[in-house]
Amino acid sequence: MPESKETYDAVIIGAGPVGLLLAVCLARWGYKIKNVDNREIPTLTGRADGIQPRSLHLLRNMGLKRQIMAHEPAKVYEVAFWDPLPGGKGIHRTGNWASCPKFIDARYPFTTLLHQGLIERVFINDLHKNGADVQRPWTITGFNNDGHDEHYPVEVTLKHVQTNERETVRTKYLFSGEGARSFIRDQLGVKIRHKDPISHVWGVMDGIVRTDFPDVKTKCTIHSDHGSIMIIPRENDMVRLYIQIASSTDKDFNPRKRATLEEVQASAKMILQPYYIDWDRVEWYSVYPIGQGIAEKYTIDHRVFLGGDCCHTHSPKAGQGMNTAFHDALNLAWKIHLVEGGFAKRSILHTYETERKSIAEDLLNFDAKYAALFSRRKPSAGEVGAANESKEAGEVNEFVEVFKSSAEFTSGYGIAYGPNQFNWSPDHSAQSHLFNPKGNALRTGRIMPPANVTRVVDANKVQLEQEIPLNGSFRIFLFAGVPSTTQRAVADFAANLEKQSSFYSSFQRKDIAAVSYHERHNPHSRFFTICTTFAAPRAQLEIAKLLPPILARYSDHVYADDVWDPRFPDAKAAAHAKMGLDVGMGGVVVVRPDGHVACVISLVEGGGTVDALNEYFGAFVAKKIGKSKMQAHL
Amino acid sequence: MPESKETYDAVIIGAGPVGLLLAVCLARWGYKIKNVDNREIPTLTGRADGIQPRSLHLLRNMGLKRQIMAHEPAKVYEVAFWDPLPGGKGIHRTGNWASCPKFIDARYPFTTLLHQGLIERVFINDLHKNGADVQRPWTITGFNNDGHDEHYPVEVTLKHVQTNERETVRTKYLFSGEGARSFIRDQLGVKIRHKDPISHVWGVMDGIVRTDFPDVKTKCTIHSDHGSIMIIPRENDMVRLYIQIASSTDKDFNPRKRATLEEVQASAKMILQPYYIDWDRVEWYSVYPIGQGIAEKYTIDHRVFLGGDCCHTHSPKAGQGMNTAFHDALNLAWKIHLVEGGFAKRSILHTYETERKSIAEDLLNFDAKYAALFSRRKPSAGEVGAANESKEAGEVNEFVEVFKSSAEFTSGYGIAYGPNQFNWSPDHSAQSHLFNPKGNALRTGRIMPPANVTRVVDANKVQLEQEIPLNGSFRIFLFAGVPSTTQRAVADFAANLEKQSSFYSSFQRKDIAAVSYHERHNPHSRFFTICTTFAAPRAQLEIAKLLPPILARYSDHVYADDVWDPRFPDAKAAAHAKMGLDVGMGGVVVVRPDGHVACVISLVEGGGTVDALNEYFGAFVAKKIGKSKMQAHL
Repeated sequence: MPESKETYDAVIIGAGPVGLLLAVCLARWGYKIKNVDNREIPTLTGRADGIQPRSLHLLRNMGLKRQIMAHEPAKVYEVAFWDPLPGGKGIHRTGNWASCPKFIDARYPFTTLLHQGLIERVFINDLHKNGADVQRPWTITGFNNDGHDEHYPVEVTLKHVQTNERETVRTKYLFSGEGARSFIRDQLGVKIRHKDPISHVWGVMDGIVRTDFPDVKTKCTIHSDHGSIMIIPRENDMVRLYIQIASSTDKDFNPRKRATLEEVQASAKMILQPYYIDWDRVEWYSVYPIGQGIAEKYTIDHRVFLGGDCCHTHSPKAGQGMNTAFHDALNLAWKIHLVEGGFAKRSILHTYETERKSIAEDLLNFDAKYAALFSRRKPSAGEVGAANESKEAGEVNEFVEVFKSSAEFTSGYGIAYGPNQFNWSPDHSAQSHLFNPKGNALRTGRIMPPANVTRVVDANKVQLEQEIPLNGSFRIFLFAGVPSTTQRAVADFAANLEKQSSFYSSFQRKDIAAVSYHERHNPHSRFFTICTTFAAPRAQLEIAKLLPPILARYSDHVYADDVWDPRFPDAKAAAHAKMGLDVGMGGVVVVRPDGHVACVISLVEGGGTVDALNEYFGAFVAKKIGKSKMQAHL
Repeated sequence: MPESKETYDAVIIGAGPVGLLLAVCLARWGYKIKNVDNREIPTLTGRADGIQPRSLHLLRNMGLKRQIMAHEPAKVYEVAFWDPLPGGKGIHRTGNWASCPKFIDARYPFTTLLHQGLIERVFINDLHKNGADVQRPWTITGFNNDGHDEHYPVEVTLKHVQTNERETVRTKYLFSGEGARSFIRDQLGVKIRHKDPISHVWGVMDGIVRTDFPDVKTKCTIHSDHGSIMIIPRENDMVRLYIQIASSTDKDFNPRKRATLEEVQASAKMILQPYYIDWDRVEWYSVYPIGQGIAEKYTIDHRVFLGGDCCHTHSPKAGQGMNTAFHDALNLAWKIHLVEGGFAKRSILHTYETERKSIAEDLLNFDAKYAALFSRRKPSAGEVGAANESKEAGEVNEFVEVFKSSAEFTSGYGIAYGPNQFNWSPDHSAQSHLFNPKGNALRTGRIMPPANVTRVVDANKVQLEQEIPLNGSFRIFLFAGVPSTTQRAVADFAANLEKQSSFYSSFQRKDIAAVSYHERHNPHSRFFTICTTFAAPRAQLEIAKLLPPILARYSDHVYADDVWDPRFPDAKAAAHAKMGLDVGMGGVVVVRPDGHVACVISLVEGGGTVDALNEYFGAFVAKKIGKSKMQAHL
């Protein structure tokens, strides 16, 4: 007798950062998910712990930053570089570098260090709020995209790790967030390509120490005559040490080389000389070889997807693992939502692999350079002698230079998706001459920069880029310039949105008549939210007089660009200035649901601006919109 | 048979804001408290909801701000003034004013609006963390400072409100946070003095509304031909309306006048014309007369104390009630701690009444002016005719002017305690010529202004005034100027602290040998914490080289004054500049445990600076310190 099979929108294997973030997004947006994990409880010790500036920005956008910060994580603002003193006299500091230098326009210019288990629990609590949970300890035993059910084409079999109880379910999507050893990836036959021929064995240790080493609460990379260490501060007075145990450049390299805790502690004491270090307590200790690799495919059928460590493994030193995982999950989440919400063509799912694999390639290139530099055994001061000091300084420079040039990438703000249907370029199918107006400072595929503005209805000073929560919607930022100048263009913009053929009209909510009076973000459609920002002081802005009803409906998203910004000290409208939009003209910035800039369009009188938006969205939406639709009606 | 009586450090009657804040402080600092409340559960609806900027600063210092903000409270940045249009044509906006204008140097320049019950729960959760709780529903039935037990002189009898179960306990202190109707105050025979002869009857209503009134999410005071309303936004799309129902200036005034919800809603609709307003839901509605009054005494025997609404009642319009309560409790908490911790003479408890009653007097003076202006029935536009518009404008000005001039007071940053043993003045017993150095910008008795600095050990950008949590300790801020110039003075400062006669040596912890290596704030004494701020970039500061061990022990409290401040754009060391301290000289700022400036002393070579500190503390500590002690040893 065939058992009745439960159906899901997504079955997510693994409840680490990548699986949890995907589960949280989909559960919040109303999808039915099953998230299983083969561990009995969330991570207790060790593992990833670095939240980069852009990731914190994302967590804020998800409303989870406050809960992360409630754990009082360590914050890393600077990295210190230490190198050997000549004559075997120990180590000295040779430089400092901001972990998120000022040239990066970040809201949170620091790395947040917190135990992965605490981060996981923040996500799990959020799942609970949406009636979801992680099913533990369960694992996957098989799956098949057999298409027997057109709506739920993938069958997945699961079992309880201890009792062997089995469950078979059907799902629209299956996701592997299983980590480096992925059953799903193996079953798909997806190969891991190893980029970096050099490999290393590292020890990692979390603990509470006593030391007179002055930078123990800062991130440090330390080279000494006795080896190399990386120090990373943690919450609750803890410190993480990464210590190199072996390198494939060693004559007698053995990737299975191990070291006891005591050996690594003895080694750390040697490296840190002339400073002392003692341990009150060691919370976690592990030894592992660095296996840099990248999955050749992130999906085969666009139903079964891979993400996180399952797709890319690399050294932990730049604190990128969890962050890359977050963004894998985010990227897939909103694309699944666009398809399953009925907004976009199924073919957009192809962009998950193209976008995220290219970032993983960038990451591994960075990591290879960084890890190689870090791991390279330096000639000891005794060997090279004081005379060689200048040569040594040259090497230090190479290391520091790699670090500096990589700061934008490691902060997360350097992530740039290439041109495709989402990220406008001159090759995009939308060819209106209004795209990419002269002077605009935005780069499609990159994060929209932060901007402070005043919300008109309540005079609150707010962060414009954070005003729309991560709700899966496109964000249409109408920079409306000086009201008296753009009045006509704004009126025309609204009138053209209302045309039957527009993206606006085509994707109205079916339940639009029942939408709450108090709905702030999606009164008309879950496909987009509209924000209007005027280049005028708040006191001069009357929403009902300035905006047609269709735009005034987003009254909680109307802003005055009247907050002074130290990066644009002379601008009267700093947000407009930051975007490179003229206050006499304004402009429209479309931002993807994940915060990356999609396209920038001139704001003009007449129908051109909305036509361009229709063209842009027309490249990937599931309905015919814009002129072609109008013509079809004729 | 006499029952054995449980003993407490403090019995606190009432678990509203004043009782809870006192309970939280004392419980955190290790005291045994009993907090009883006659309600079965915390406040469910209504009551106070305005957290002023200085109070939010305090909650941050207690580590509770994040939990308050997790409820997404409304934030009020501006107050809008609305007045009648001539010719009976409804109302129009006549002005806006920042609720915490820029001339006030506040970290959080807004008022936070949140339901009192949610605020109470934040405190109650904190009590739980320290093993304490609120005992409900219990009430006090009697008390007697009979001195039968020299350590626990006050006997208190309590009963369960429903079962009449009784309990008799003994305590060092009894506190009434019972609110306006206080059993303890009545038993003590303390009279309420009514300052303002004018009284008013007000209706207050919390609810969710629909309206096209554009300022419904801002704080507004509205005068119309049909009466007056105050609008206050709340969390979760709620709005609070205060509507005047009667005034003693009315011919037929009846302080018992009531109005139904429907009457008040009808009245609101009239007042807001030409705008509409409808209610989705009313959460709370109440009518009450404003009874402005002040208790003539806050204590009689310095064992039984009164605070909060029990001591001062006034109109709710400026959102001061809960804030004044917080500061009553805070003021008493640290003074009890100084006495019971063995640091200060019992006589300091006298300053609770002198300090807090003077603030209550200020509050009532402000409130009388504000409420009278607000309540005064304005001649209707129809009555006075368009010709009188200019006269009307004059009246508006008076209202706005009172509001503006009071902004510093209502923000909490205007609170200024007068000279006494804690707040140095030329009349203080400490007469060193080093007090109050020329140029210093601080005013004793007022809050230390905020300043951004870089913490040396971890390069974190931090808020200097928040760096020491509310732990009951005095805060000694050593502004050490330019290291090369002050090197000798800093060394002398440390050497003189170490002298046996100093306040430093006199109040060392008994458990000093067992103090954790990781203790950041009180490694030497619970009486004080020492912070050192240098006028130099962080990269130039090596704690071990610059500071003698006694100061270096506070390594988490060593800062670089290297953060640019828009209020001092040209200063190289903005924190020094803000305090008015010369970077070539430095200075010592002593801040009371509650954040108010106690005294400012020049930093000089030799023993003078520590001598002055000994003199200052000598005015109220429980031991002989400084020269007199040294002489006693001779």
